[in-house]
Amino acid sequence: MKSAISEATTQRLSLLLRGLKALEAEGLTTASSALLAERFSLNSAQIRKDLAHFGEFGVRGVGYRVADLRSKLQALMGLSTPRTVVIVGAGNLGLALADSRNFNNESFKVAALFDVDGRKIGSRSKTGVPIRAVSELPQALSAMGATIGALAVPPDAVREMALTLAAGGVKGLLNFAAAPLAPIPGVVVKNVDMALFLEGLTFQLASASS
Amino acid sequence: MKSAISEATTQRLSLLLRGLKALEAEGLTTASSALLAERFSLNSAQIRKDLAHFGEFGVRGVGYRVADLRSKLQALMGLSTPRTVVIVGAGNLGLALADSRNFNNESFKVAALFDVDGRKIGSRSKTGVPIRAVSELPQALSAMGATIGALAVPPDAVREMALTLAAGGVKGLLNFAAAPLAPIPGVVVKNVDMALFLEGLTFQLASASS
Repeated sequence: MKSAISEATTQRLSLLLRGLKALEAEGLTTASSALLAERFSLNSAQIRKDLAHFGEFGVRGVGYRVADLRSKLQALMGLSTPRTVVIVGAGNLGLALADSRNFNNESFKVAALFDVDGRKIGSRSKTGVPIRAVSELPQALSAMGATIGALAVPPDAVREMALTLAAGGVKGLLNFAAAPLAPIPGVVVKNVDMALFLEGLTFQLASASS
Repeated sequence: MKSAISEATTQRLSLLLRGLKALEAEGLTTASSALLAERFSLNSAQIRKDLAHFGEFGVRGVGYRVADLRSKLQALMGLSTPRTVVIVGAGNLGLALADSRNFNNESFKVAALFDVDGRKIGSRSKTGVPIRAVSELPQALSAMGATIGALAVPPDAVREMALTLAAGGVKGLLNFAAAPLAPIPGVVVKNVDMALFLEGLTFQLASASS
């Protein structure tokens, strides 16, 4: 297992991938790092450095071949084939995630929401994602081939639900609950803490005014 | 205006601040960077480097004075006094944010949600945050002293709502909508794209299995 890739690198590569898709849609076949930088507010030296870290992508004097780089980057990021996602917790946050086109799209398909509330089970989110019973999780996970789980449950349910997902074959967990999830062997865990966005923003405001 | 602080630094300082609060609550008066690193899964050299960047916080042979460092870090991050936040959009995401203790707490107080849906206006979120009419925003913003706005609206409403918030004195915007918000002069804008979390997780999974 390689060492974890930094959050910053991941974000830059995600933004670069979006940029490449946009250029490809415009019909561009090659692009220099300077063009990529200018179009997508990235740093050209940083782009070259990031890409060099993962192999030789550029062609001297030509720049990057857009479709080729897009496809390699997609493969590198594990995004060549769509991933099946399940969301545990069909409260406001779980429903918001299921219905967001940022979260449920061609790369990530939200197959189902799971909840313990009998009034919700059997219904669907606005965009049609079915809400199923948490008790069905073990059987449903393998049937769906879900590899990613998102937790949008109350803090005291986080650990149990995470272990249920892991036992069902989920390899990556995004935890949106207001309680951090400790590591689980064999699973990549990412805690998403909404407070960090607010704190980051406040820090920038404080720095800007000092 | 200083140059923007990196996302990574901000996140590390946020986690360090949480750690210091926890140690203070346990009654600890001093702590070495090694202890801080061990307790909060941070890197001790990185802690020293981050803190050195912002001034001299440590005492040789003693380590850091916990309460002192906590208070200085809080001030540095603009978190000494609570900030008033408004959320535009009382759909699932807006409601989830208003009711999250990660988002609405002692440092950040969500004063109100704003929406255009007459069926929602006048009601409250589960935890009691009032839902008001978007048309009241200009008057309400100055009355509330809101400095931070969160956007949880449909993509085509992002820009207009952002400009309304900026005109009302909001200095920082967190955009959760599925459409990025271009810069607005005098306002710190942070786009939160849920897809980046999924992509980051997938990237780590792809790297772990290669």
